[in-house]
Amino acid sequence: MSGLPSPVDVREVGPRDGLQAEAPVDVATRVAMIESLLDAGVTHIEVAAFVSPRAVPAMAGAGDVLASVPRRAGVVYAALVPNVKGAELALGAGVDELTVTVSASETYSRRNVRMSVEESIVAAADICAVAGGVPADVIVSCAFGSPYEGDIAPDEVAALGRRLAEQGAARVTYADTTGMATPRRIDALVDLTGADIGLHLHDTRGTALVNAYAALLRGVRRFDTAIGGLGGSPFASGAAGNLGTEDLVHLLDDLGIETGIDLERLIAVSREVAGVVDHDVPSRVAGAGPRSTPAAG
Amino acid sequence: MSGLPSPVDVREVGPRDGLQAEAPVDVATRVAMIESLLDAGVTHIEVAAFVSPRAVPAMAGAGDVLASVPRRAGVVYAALVPNVKGAELALGAGVDELTVTVSASETYSRRNVRMSVEESIVAAADICAVAGGVPADVIVSCAFGSPYEGDIAPDEVAALGRRLAEQGAARVTYADTTGMATPRRIDALVDLTGADIGLHLHDTRGTALVNAYAALLRGVRRFDTAIGGLGGSPFASGAAGNLGTEDLVHLLDDLGIETGIDLERLIAVSREVAGVVDHDVPSRVAGAGPRSTPAAG
Repeated sequence: MSGLPSPVDVREVGPRDGLQAEAPVDVATRVAMIESLLDAGVTHIEVAAFVSPRAVPAMAGAGDVLASVPRRAGVVYAALVPNVKGAELALGAGVDELTVTVSASETYSRRNVRMSVEESIVAAADICAVAGGVPADVIVSCAFGSPYEGDIAPDEVAALGRRLAEQGAARVTYADTTGMATPRRIDALVDLTGADIGLHLHDTRGTALVNAYAALLRGVRRFDTAIGGLGGSPFASGAAGNLGTEDLVHLLDDLGIETGIDLERLIAVSREVAGVVDHDVPSRVAGAGPRSTPAAG
Repeated sequence: MSGLPSPVDVREVGPRDGLQAEAPVDVATRVAMIESLLDAGVTHIEVAAFVSPRAVPAMAGAGDVLASVPRRAGVVYAALVPNVKGAELALGAGVDELTVTVSASETYSRRNVRMSVEESIVAAADICAVAGGVPADVIVSCAFGSPYEGDIAPDEVAALGRRLAEQGAARVTYADTTGMATPRRIDALVDLTGADIGLHLHDTRGTALVNAYAALLRGVRRFDTAIGGLGGSPFASGAAGNLGTEDLVHLLDDLGIETGIDLERLIAVSREVAGVVDHDVPSRVAGAGPRSTPAAG
């Protein structure tokens, strides 16, 4: 397996993307969850979204979260910001990295952020402009297809990524927002963008891990994941959400790829988190334990 | 993606391996399920097990199933047989292929079939000897690790497969009985056996599809799958079982690999089957629909 990247950067998005779809969890519990993740060796965490607490009640208290999390050497805290005002709040709260989204799908963009793709590219550039030395990771949503327009040509998606980088994005991450990516489509995009991209994969169709593996074989070394695979519909218990952190680390460990994360401790955190959200999490590794789990009897 | 195998032989094991773990389903319903699978283009199906109906009530009526299924050109019906007596019953019922299992794990073998591995190799050879022109596919269970002994060296597993082939197995299939396979371990085994093997993958740890993809990249063209991903514990709704037929076909379709199976019709069968077993099936593609599914609103 020579040629596989190592180390791989696992950006944990559970406290933001994962919890956003759940019943609101108080700030102290979110901070405790972040501390548990740090103790398991996670060093890159999306901890908050500076959005209207009226629109997204689960993300209320973003400034309090950033004020309360422990500051440790090598730990990077990211926050999602929808606009310059959110970016200024996040910067004021001491965030290490901004997350900004731009959709590759015109209809998805208009329905979700009430902006055209062009308007949202401008908004992202405005955020990058005020960020100072703080890097902005721009996430291209619907990068592998839109439930409205269907497939989106990889060269269009890659061109959008290039524009975002030219306009100040420190990093570009491609998101499979609706679980439409496949290994072939991962390969097609990475062949156009090169391997220096992030991937934000969803498990809607059970393809998150196989897509991550296809990307690893192409040399991609940055992945967004959520503890427990959180991020699915809160109304369907067990519904698939983001690629589960423990599912990716389980694969990476077996491939001999470094992450700095301790799988056993991570699975313990996942069980805590299942208690916090009060339902089983979709991750299969969380359910079954790692492959080294002995038989019960 | 040149170099990928096509066509791929998808052996549907839902009516046997899938239903075995469920509350018993009557013969007429099992036959109707098999007919629906045929109508979706499935041509290779494990339809029954000639085992003691006292030990495995869900498999009662194996002879009646084989007497009732429609005989169509190109369709292969397999049945699991544990011993020569079962093989003779299956052959008398007109089966096209015998499925026999031998475990790579000594403890698993003793606990599950009360035979040592050596004894079970002899039993498999005896079955092959009475099969006449009917091919026997010998399945090596725990091929990627045992919950008792842990890892089993791939060269030991490959050597077991070679012995089984020498003793009359027409084909050898390696089973990830407890979901311990990983892409690296698939690669290691296929490098020793060559690509002319079958794989029987379980999704206990969410790795069935990524393991299948790793095998496809190595040229493997025979996979066991179960409609809906059935085969998990009947006591845990949504618990992962076999690689879901629709999950594999969804991947193969996107890779341009022929199976002869119609994905939309297959998903419709999966929904019927969820009704038969009276719970949601674990397959994510069954839950979300194929990637071409349009947005709801």
